Amino acid sequence: MLFYSSMRYVSAYLLAVLGGNEKPSAKDCTAILGSVGIEVDAKQLKTVIDSLNGKNLEELIAEGMQNNVEV
Amino acid sequence: MLFYSSMRYVSAYLLAVLGGNEKPSAKDCTAILGSVGIEVDAKQLKTVIDSLNGKNLEELIAEGMQNNVEV
Repeated sequence: MLFYSSMRYVSAYLLAVLGGNEKPSAKDCTAILGSVGIEVDAKQLKTVIDSLNGKNLEELIAEGMQNNVEV
Repeated sequence: MLFYSSMRYVSAYLLAVLGGNEKPSAKDCTAILGSVGIEVDAKQLKTVIDSLNGKNLEELIAEGMQNNVEV
């Protein structure tokens, strides 16, 4: 469950980066997640963003996989 | 470059699945990609969707990683 919830945030963040947004904000991620009907836990999202900001694309994907391992 | 373009589609598809859409369509993925300003190559998107439909979440993530390896 922890995996699924953090994976959402990492995926939205990754997609924002793929779209050319170098430093997606909580607002950016919330908008993306809203477009697929996912409600955001603001605290959880902030934690994820704080841990992802400044990482490059390869690191973001590795982060997503780490979450996978933590299931 | 191939990686970046297919990764976009896989990410959008994954996000749709995380949002509870069991079988995202090209239209669903296009809407998500549009929300981050990514223009869709319909042919390429169709190819990705055709290869992802019916896969579970774990397989989708593995697929994303495979694309990573192909860079």
